Amino acid sequence: MDFSSFLTSIATSFIIFLVLVLIFSWLSGKDSNKVIYYPNRILKGLEPWEGTKTRNPFAWIGETFRSTEKDVIEMAGVDTAVYFVFLGTVLGILVLSGIVLLPVLLPVAATDNNVKLKQSTTNGTFSNLDKLAMGNIQVQSTRLWAFLIATYWVTIVTFYLLWKAYMHCTNLRVAALSNSQMKPEQFAILVRDIPPMPKGQTRNEQVDSFFRKLHPETFYKSMVITDIKQANKIWEELEGYRKKLARAETIFAASKTVKKPEGTKPTNRTGFLGLIGPKVDTIDFCNEKIKELVPKLEKEQSATIQEKQQASALIFFTSKMAAASASQTLHSKMTNSWTIMEAPEPCQLIWKNLSIKFWARQIRERIVYFIVFMTVVFYMVPITFVSAFSTLKNLRKLLPFLKVIVDKPAIKTVLEAYLPQLALIVFLALLPKLLLFLSTTEGIPSKSHTVRAASGKYFYFIIFNVFLGVTIGGTLFSSLKTILDEPKKIISMLGGTLPGNATFFITFVALKFFIGYGLELSRLVPLIIYHLKRKYLCKTEVEIKEAWAPGEVGFVTRVPNDMLIITIALCYSVIAPLIIPFGVAYFGLGWLVLRNQALKVYVPTYESNGRMWPHLHARIIAALVLYQITMIGYFSVKEFVFTVFLIPLPVLSFIFTYVCRKRFYLGFEFTPLEVVCQSSKETPDMESIMEAYVPRCLSSMEKFDTA
Amino acid sequence: MDFSSFLTSIATSFIIFLVLVLIFSWLSGKDSNKVIYYPNRILKGLEPWEGTKTRNPFAWIGETFRSTEKDVIEMAGVDTAVYFVFLGTVLGILVLSGIVLLPVLLPVAATDNNVKLKQSTTNGTFSNLDKLAMGNIQVQSTRLWAFLIATYWVTIVTFYLLWKAYMHCTNLRVAALSNSQMKPEQFAILVRDIPPMPKGQTRNEQVDSFFRKLHPETFYKSMVITDIKQANKIWEELEGYRKKLARAETIFAASKTVKKPEGTKPTNRTGFLGLIGPKVDTIDFCNEKIKELVPKLEKEQSATIQEKQQASALIFFTSKMAAASASQTLHSKMTNSWTIMEAPEPCQLIWKNLSIKFWARQIRERIVYFIVFMTVVFYMVPITFVSAFSTLKNLRKLLPFLKVIVDKPAIKTVLEAYLPQLALIVFLALLPKLLLFLSTTEGIPSKSHTVRAASGKYFYFIIFNVFLGVTIGGTLFSSLKTILDEPKKIISMLGGTLPGNATFFITFVALKFFIGYGLELSRLVPLIIYHLKRKYLCKTEVEIKEAWAPGEVGFVTRVPNDMLIITIALCYSVIAPLIIPFGVAYFGLGWLVLRNQALKVYVPTYESNGRMWPHLHARIIAALVLYQITMIGYFSVKEFVFTVFLIPLPVLSFIFTYVCRKRFYLGFEFTPLEVVCQSSKETPDMESIMEAYVPRCLSSMEKFDTA
Repeated sequence: MDFSSFLTSIATSFIIFLVLVLIFSWLSGKDSNKVIYYPNRILKGLEPWEGTKTRNPFAWIGETFRSTEKDVIEMAGVDTAVYFVFLGTVLGILVLSGIVLLPVLLPVAATDNNVKLKQSTTNGTFSNLDKLAMGNIQVQSTRLWAFLIATYWVTIVTFYLLWKAYMHCTNLRVAALSNSQMKPEQFAILVRDIPPMPKGQTRNEQVDSFFRKLHPETFYKSMVITDIKQANKIWEELEGYRKKLARAETIFAASKTVKKPEGTKPTNRTGFLGLIGPKVDTIDFCNEKIKELVPKLEKEQSATIQEKQQASALIFFTSKMAAASASQTLHSKMTNSWTIMEAPEPCQLIWKNLSIKFWARQIRERIVYFIVFMTVVFYMVPITFVSAFSTLKNLRKLLPFLKVIVDKPAIKTVLEAYLPQLALIVFLALLPKLLLFLSTTEGIPSKSHTVRAASGKYFYFIIFNVFLGVTIGGTLFSSLKTILDEPKKIISMLGGTLPGNATFFITFVALKFFIGYGLELSRLVPLIIYHLKRKYLCKTEVEIKEAWAPGEVGFVTRVPNDMLIITIALCYSVIAPLIIPFGVAYFGLGWLVLRNQALKVYVPTYESNGRMWPHLHARIIAALVLYQITMIGYFSVKEFVFTVFLIPLPVLSFIFTYVCRKRFYLGFEFTPLEVVCQSSKETPDMESIMEAYVPRCLSSMEKFDTA
Repeated sequence: MDFSSFLTSIATSFIIFLVLVLIFSWLSGKDSNKVIYYPNRILKGLEPWEGTKTRNPFAWIGETFRSTEKDVIEMAGVDTAVYFVFLGTVLGILVLSGIVLLPVLLPVAATDNNVKLKQSTTNGTFSNLDKLAMGNIQVQSTRLWAFLIATYWVTIVTFYLLWKAYMHCTNLRVAALSNSQMKPEQFAILVRDIPPMPKGQTRNEQVDSFFRKLHPETFYKSMVITDIKQANKIWEELEGYRKKLARAETIFAASKTVKKPEGTKPTNRTGFLGLIGPKVDTIDFCNEKIKELVPKLEKEQSATIQEKQQASALIFFTSKMAAASASQTLHSKMTNSWTIMEAPEPCQLIWKNLSIKFWARQIRERIVYFIVFMTVVFYMVPITFVSAFSTLKNLRKLLPFLKVIVDKPAIKTVLEAYLPQLALIVFLALLPKLLLFLSTTEGIPSKSHTVRAASGKYFYFIIFNVFLGVTIGGTLFSSLKTILDEPKKIISMLGGTLPGNATFFITFVALKFFIGYGLELSRLVPLIIYHLKRKYLCKTEVEIKEAWAPGEVGFVTRVPNDMLIITIALCYSVIAPLIIPFGVAYFGLGWLVLRNQALKVYVPTYESNGRMWPHLHARIIAALVLYQITMIGYFSVKEFVFTVFLIPLPVLSFIFTYVCRKRFYLGFEFTPLEVVCQSSKETPDMESIMEAYVPRCLSSMEKFDTA
């Protein structure tokens, strides 16, 4: 890529970004769009914006900058605050690196002339950008010392800021946990793998007697997990009819105009998708169905509670300390039975995973790891398969009605060119969902944990396939063979091929943040969908509310993508320091845009009190180690004899990881007693705590523990 | 080694063994030797043997066979019982393997003739033993199928018996822990890394307030660990003088004969080792010294308690359940402070290690691992160094007075031949002590743990240097380089060189058990030392008692040696099945001899309730994996195409390890609540529990917690 096309690409992206920001500023001031741009504030019962009626279009920037961490925690929870610690830390790493690297390395590189020398012999394309990179330094040059010291500088900066961030996140977590609020999950533990019932005892009696014996003073009650699949199905059907009824009533009320005061009763067909079957009056039909389903649900509810009990239970304690202590203690002498863990938040509980047994969980985990490994390594295979399947020829055979369109030459050309890419895009778009599904299949009992697990898997995918794929070139599979045969080669492979792709990645980062954050901020897609839905589909208030429901930040895909950028930025930081400003722009803009979104748009559905941090920390360190290995490789390519001085770096990284793990990790895995004891003075309302855990499909019952 | 010299060697060993057994049978019946052959029974207040006055010399065999596991636990504790589970399991593995392998593989091997073929061409030494081994099978022969199935059989037998043994040990541990005895360690936890004292609080107040807040109902008292080095020194000095006084008084009393009723007052010199300085009356001198030291000790005691407090403490709880629960719970929000663990037994506590801080422990551990690694890999270096140093020429220079002896030609030859070997023997004899010292230096707070750690280190040493050293030949260092360069080579190295050493190892095993167990049973060395001491040194009852003190079983060296034998037996089980009977003999005789010793001789000094089992289990599995890899290598050498069928074996072993770990390990790491709750009815005598933990040098004080 030559310099002008590089500039063009950056400029185009920037203009698109500016346009999107302007669109946002314009649209977000409109009253009808408030629910799209300020749903989080609206749902929390706040005004979309404070103060004056009219709004400065760029007021959001100031508001975002003025917002404190406390505001973020209040509006979006600790998890989001931790995510901003992550963004801030990465931004800090890049800024501190840039301050030293840009003024030092750019002149050192620019005044050497390795690129020119090479160019005159091989007649390659010349690029001004390459002159500013480490590639322009001649082999064995003493100038390489500057780069070597820079490599150390980046590492030290990373260590320092990561340490501070870990400390900060620990404090955030401690503050959240020692909060005097009565969160139900703080009074409960989850016990799985309960052994078979002894004769003459019900499951409830078995669980109660076990825990009453071991915690005679603090045990409150237990709630046995049941198989709610059937009950849930009936409940969902019932809810469906209730919604339909509400909708029909609204339509009926709206049809009562002055001209036609009796109105038109809405009708529907009872068959498949409302398309076939006899026509009926919707209101009557729904009322009838509801009348039918309510007793059915009640019957199913009591059947579920009495007969469908599983080998797991939630145990409630009368104090936070007792629950925290019990969740960390080995209870049974058979260590694979009565396995205990902290109870997840009620809303996070993946009910259907709770009954999966100990060994089944182990086996599922292994199988999922294997599938993910295969997906990462052979991800090209299903795409090739889908591509082959979706060639025009096959499509015509399978779906003959497409013949008319497909046979037109113009359409044919376009389709032939884009079908494989389309397959790739569809696959990549489905991947996070697949990974989330796989993580859930592992048997993890809480949603936040599945999100972390899926995000981790996606990270591997993205690093291996996008980063290493582009860098080393070709499919990962062929490289993998070389690596397995001679593990040492990976260093020279990274060092040898990475630098050539610097410009590509700079453009990639620029595109990513300009377009990505522009779209994120302007929320064009949700806006259009909302307005379409409101106009043509939604009738009741509930339906409209559902149409603008903002959802959550979506860490599953966001975190791995950020990780890809930090990996790229770190790996090229010394090789081509010009990438640093782009990295700074990515995380700076990201911080600004997402802070706005966190404060005003997204509504988190769960709270894990910053459990995500160790996950983020480990992956930043992984990126750092990749960077260090790359540098060792590249310095070797430059035949620099003092490359050996870089070998301590990965070792230091491992020591740092170990120290951080020892120093901080336990606090994220368990709840320290000291933390929960600070607020255990009040007497909790135990009934409401238990009620929070009753699944919706069972909750209309008078009491859960009547069985 | 040809067949006749092999037989000679075995026969010689066997005769020595028989002689030693006869010596034992004869000597153990004598009254004056009772304290050597039955000290454990005598110390427990039992008669050396039950029933008749005279004793059948071979009664011990019957008694040993009749003894139950309960007897072993009563006489020698759970740890010893677990060791017998280990011996029994290994014996079972070898017996079950032998029952199938010997009748099947020996005929299959004997009727082929690969050895003859080879011998006729290379003119090597012919051996009848080699005809009975896998080496006699021709390459690519279908007979190899029998060996392949045998390889699976040994693995399955090992898995089955190990699983049963782990289950059995778990039950032993649970039974021991749920025992209704009031063991002090069940009411205490050990807390280390207490943060600096807040202003205006003493260490005691700080610890008490922290734990009282977190365990308001079950906290009893705390005992802050102090630096007792100085107090201990004074106490030991005092004890020394007390002993000396008792001895002098006995001598004085004995000297009062009829002829000389006033007796001779014993005297000694006060200077270096009692050799120089003025002569004084020993009784007066000691009395004076004791009078001097008692107030000094008292002063030091109160100074220790008040001023030398360390950042660790023992915390006592009023119930076993509270202690078990607290020992597993994270207490502090700073996860590297207030680190908690189960309290070791009072007698196991390594007092001086308790004050080592968190990071210091981590660093010590790493440094010790590094030293051990270097010792294992470069163990030849110090020996070479010592050998060089101890050549005759150097010795003459350093110790000129040896000249007269050294210069005699006969002595010179002998010395020159044996000096290097002597250095090796001294080094190998010192190694367990060195490893125990290193393990203690790690900062481990309990003795049983240091013994496990040292035994683990010794295992690596013995496997790498003795087993792999002999097999692969040459120093490990040169092999290691090849292995590091091409990891795959280790398989072919093992497969290629192991079979040649079968006869060597058979002889080795035979020598080991015949001579080793013969000496063990006859206790010739302790017997001679005891009689010498009693005759020439001991004067008082206490001194005599000390002279026959039997000591403990000594797992540090015993376990790794057993592990070496099981490794050898497993690795050769299919290659040269003839080794199995020798392995059976080793573990069978070991069981018999050691059971006698455990019941009658050794007195264990601590009880870890079978914590050793996971350690033993892991090492048997390690031996099994080594065996499986060897077999893969050897089948490849035999060019057997179905060798691939062996690849699942190591994988199965890893799965088995994982399953066992998940299923059982937690129960050995922590105390399950269920286990301690069964016996928490009685009210414990808390004062005596705390007193058990007061170190001897502080125990003459009225009360520990007066500070």
